[in-house]
Amino acid sequence: MPAERRTCFIVSDHTGISAEALARALLAQFGGLELRKMTLPFVYSAERVEEVRAAIDRAREQDGVRPLVFSTLINPDLRHQLTAADALVMDFFEPFISRIEEELSQRSSQRVGGAHSFVEGPAYQRRIDAVHFALSTDDGLHCEHYDVAEIVLVGVSRSGKTPTCLYLALQYGLHAANYPVTEEDLDRARLPDPLRPYVSRLCGLTIDPHRLHQIRQERRPDSRYAALETCRREVKQVEGLFQRYRIPSVDSSAASVEEIATTVMERMGLTRDSI
Amino acid sequence: MPAERRTCFIVSDHTGISAEALARALLAQFGGLELRKMTLPFVYSAERVEEVRAAIDRAREQDGVRPLVFSTLINPDLRHQLTAADALVMDFFEPFISRIEEELSQRSSQRVGGAHSFVEGPAYQRRIDAVHFALSTDDGLHCEHYDVAEIVLVGVSRSGKTPTCLYLALQYGLHAANYPVTEEDLDRARLPDPLRPYVSRLCGLTIDPHRLHQIRQERRPDSRYAALETCRREVKQVEGLFQRYRIPSVDSSAASVEEIATTVMERMGLTRDSI
Repeated sequence: MPAERRTCFIVSDHTGISAEALARALLAQFGGLELRKMTLPFVYSAERVEEVRAAIDRAREQDGVRPLVFSTLINPDLRHQLTAADALVMDFFEPFISRIEEELSQRSSQRVGGAHSFVEGPAYQRRIDAVHFALSTDDGLHCEHYDVAEIVLVGVSRSGKTPTCLYLALQYGLHAANYPVTEEDLDRARLPDPLRPYVSRLCGLTIDPHRLHQIRQERRPDSRYAALETCRREVKQVEGLFQRYRIPSVDSSAASVEEIATTVMERMGLTRDSI
Repeated sequence: MPAERRTCFIVSDHTGISAEALARALLAQFGGLELRKMTLPFVYSAERVEEVRAAIDRAREQDGVRPLVFSTLINPDLRHQLTAADALVMDFFEPFISRIEEELSQRSSQRVGGAHSFVEGPAYQRRIDAVHFALSTDDGLHCEHYDVAEIVLVGVSRSGKTPTCLYLALQYGLHAANYPVTEEDLDRARLPDPLRPYVSRLCGLTIDPHRLHQIRQERRPDSRYAALETCRREVKQVEGLFQRYRIPSVDSSAASVEEIATTVMERMGLTRDSI
């Protein structure tokens, strides 16, 4: 039996990024679906909602089944307008707004895009500064700026340092630098000089040698750099270095950037309180 | 009257990033709160939930009011264990799982972290490749790789190109390069040669001259580069260039990276279907 084809709409009055992530998490609980996903951001007027309803109607006729609709519309009128569609409409705010209102004895403001209207604030500026910091200190550059770093990721080449630093910067405004330990450093079994004053800010990334071999093969096929033997030795040596200097470490082998970043923050005792 | 101090917990069996974003959007609807936010990721056992409940109890006693708890736990037993806490517990999955089960005539798998268990898949590899592409083509570097780019952002210095490219890469796996138009390019009122074969992939970033002045002042105070006069002229010239070559453009002045990225994708007709 072929999988039933169905359309899934994600409707937001803002970017739709949170709604998308939550819808993905929910839908991951259901297997064997052939879903056509449509994210419709910036739906903030009755006219836009009408367009969405027309798209829902078309999809229902094409698929022969009701679409799934995930929504984070704030405005109650637009919400009711969307809920009236012939689809399974799931509103991520509806079940919670009135409960929070009651708990806080306060009405909600029903202001669109409230979560992101902070571009002018210091938290946002911090994120942008952190991105530029991550870029300027990528791959061992500008170690003289490590006094500003909250985290310095250390690991062998292609263990996932750069994307993790950029994620920490973009998502959390953390100043994260990264330093690639070279074969020479490893052979000496000694922490490279530029890192020594910052041991407490170091976090190691380690990786399964087979996975590392696979990643490096893509980059430089059949090189000494990519050889399984090289990967095995480097990983063993770098883990020895982490142990010797009591550097906490995170295994990046089967983890996404989001998972690595979250675990790094946990290991380093960095909270997400102010974000 | 001083704002009531209250603690808000975000509890997830995974990274907690989606729950955090949605909680932030909900809480942005309520003003004047002094919230202490605690994100507790990787809560995947009865022991961990007990720890969370103890933390909830401590916060309630300290604050004198019940904490707000946002949760995306998948496992029903853990969910019930958390819901029993003396707090306003809001479960982002609970109201929807059974409705989707009914609609699809299928039970949910109750698999933890389902949404992110795709590290080995092509979509994830695409994101990592896109990050390395964004880095290698940042600030006009390696234009010879533009044939791989889905988007080339064009704009004056500090209009927000680099963070936007990195976000498009990390979040959507889009290959986004960026090219800084220089004063010389602008004076000639002519699209720089490396960009000419790729006009259809270009997206302009524009910015309010006062905002640009403010940003550049931070970087090089009282320089000719930062002068309001320079910013005014450059922005006017670059907007002329966008018009002349019919390059769609996005105003980055008061927009977050997420908002700019979403708008760029809309303008370029890039959908988020496959993500």
